[in-house]
Amino acid sequence: MPLTIGVLGGMGPAATINFMAKVLRHSQESAAREQDNVRLIVDSNPALPDRNAAIAGTGPSPAPGLAAMARGLHAAGAQVLAMPCNAAHAFADAVIGATPLPFIHLVEETVGAVSREHGAARRIGVLAANGAAEARLYERALEASALIPVVPDQAMRANFMNGIWQIKAGDLASGRSAVAAAAMQLIAEGAEVIIAGCTEVPLVIGPGDLPVPLIDSTDVLARRAVSFALAAA
Amino acid sequence: MPLTIGVLGGMGPAATINFMAKVLRHSQESAAREQDNVRLIVDSNPALPDRNAAIAGTGPSPAPGLAAMARGLHAAGAQVLAMPCNAAHAFADAVIGATPLPFIHLVEETVGAVSREHGAARRIGVLAANGAAEARLYERALEASALIPVVPDQAMRANFMNGIWQIKAGDLASGRSAVAAAAMQLIAEGAEVIIAGCTEVPLVIGPGDLPVPLIDSTDVLARRAVSFALAAA
Repeated sequence: MPLTIGVLGGMGPAATINFMAKVLRHSQESAAREQDNVRLIVDSNPALPDRNAAIAGTGPSPAPGLAAMARGLHAAGAQVLAMPCNAAHAFADAVIGATPLPFIHLVEETVGAVSREHGAARRIGVLAANGAAEARLYERALEASALIPVVPDQAMRANFMNGIWQIKAGDLASGRSAVAAAAMQLIAEGAEVIIAGCTEVPLVIGPGDLPVPLIDSTDVLARRAVSFALAAA
Repeated sequence: MPLTIGVLGGMGPAATINFMAKVLRHSQESAAREQDNVRLIVDSNPALPDRNAAIAGTGPSPAPGLAAMARGLHAAGAQVLAMPCNAAHAFADAVIGATPLPFIHLVEETVGAVSREHGAARRIGVLAANGAAEARLYERALEASALIPVVPDQAMRANFMNGIWQIKAGDLASGRSAVAAAAMQLIAEGAEVIIAGCTEVPLVIGPGDLPVPLIDSTDVLARRAVSFALAAA
C-alpha cells in the first residue's frame, strides 16, 4: 500500500487544490486504476492566522494551529506530511515537532530540484511572499547550496505581494500581471531560473510563460510526495 | 465560526478536486479575506472498492470503508459530512449511521434543485454511472417528486460508462464524447433538463454545452455545503 499523505492546506485553498491536482497527475503516471492512486487526507484550513503578518510581528502565530493540524492528520491516518505553502515553512519546526511523521520540506525540495535540473545556473530568482522573504527561507537554502538569490526590490515586492492578495481573493488576471512583472525584473537582474516560491504563483503563470525556466514549488512537492508514498508500496 | 465540512472523497480524486474548487468559488462569494473561507477536511481515498462492482454484486462493498472514513473525519473535527460521488450514495446509510454528524445528501439535494430551478420540467434526463442506475438512486428520488426519469438505453449506458472510466483515467477528450452522446440521446427522448448525476460528468461538460439546462450535482452539493456551514456562523 502506498503511504497516506497528510496535507496541511488552506494557505490558500486554491493553492491546496492546485497541489492536489498535481499529486493526482503524478499519481496517474503510474496508476493503472483509480484505486491505485495515492490517498490524501487534507485539512484545508483557511482560518489559520496570516503567516506574513506573524513573521512581520504584526499578527498572531499560526504555529499552534499548524501543530494541531499535524496532530489531527496523524490521528486521521496520515503517514507522511506535506504543506503546500512556502511562507508557512517559517513555522516548519512546529509541524515537525508535533508528530513522529516524516515531513517533506517544500523549500529544501525546491532548491534541490533547482540544483538537480539546472546545475549550471548560479543566479536564482525567487518569487516569494513577504513572510517567506522576511524569514529568508529561500535565501538561506540557496546560499547553503552556493547559489545566489535574486529577489525583487522593495517597490516590486510590494506590487508582487498585492498580486498575491488578488490571487487569494480570486482575481487571477490582476494577480498575473503583478507576478509576471516581478519575474521580468528578476530576469533583467540576471536570474537564470525563477523559483515560484509562493504556491499562489503557479495559479497564474506556468513553465511556458517566462523566457527562463520556472521551478514550480507546488509541483516539486507533489512529485516528491507521490514518489515518497509509492516507495513504501 | 462556519462549520468544518468533512468530505468523503477520492471517488474519484479529480471529482473531489472539482468539488473543492466549487466549494471555494461559493465560499468566496461571501468571504472578504482568505481567513473567511470555509474549512474542509477531505479524505481523498481512491482505494475504496469500486461502487459499481459492489452494487452489481461482483465486488466487495465499500460500506465499511466509507463508515471508517466518516468516523475519521468526525474525529479530525468535521461538523457536517458531504460525499461528492453519486453511486456511493447507495451506501449512504453506512455513512449516516457511522457518526452523529449531519449528512448533506447529494441525490436529494440535486433533485431538490431541479424542482426549484426548473419547476415546469417533467421529463428529467439522468446521466449516472452503472451503480447509481442499478440502485435507481435518481429514478426513485425523481419519482417521489412526481418527475419522470429519462435514462440511456443499454448500449448507450455501456458507452457512457466506458466514458466515465476514461475520465477517471485522465482521458478527458474520449470521456467527453461518450458523455455528450448520452446527453444528446436523452434530449432526443424528450428530456427537458439533464442531471449530471455522476461527479465525473462536470469534469467534461458544463452548463453551456447542451441545448437544455444541465444540473451539476457537484455544484449543487458544494453550494449547499457552503450555505450549511455558513448558517452556523
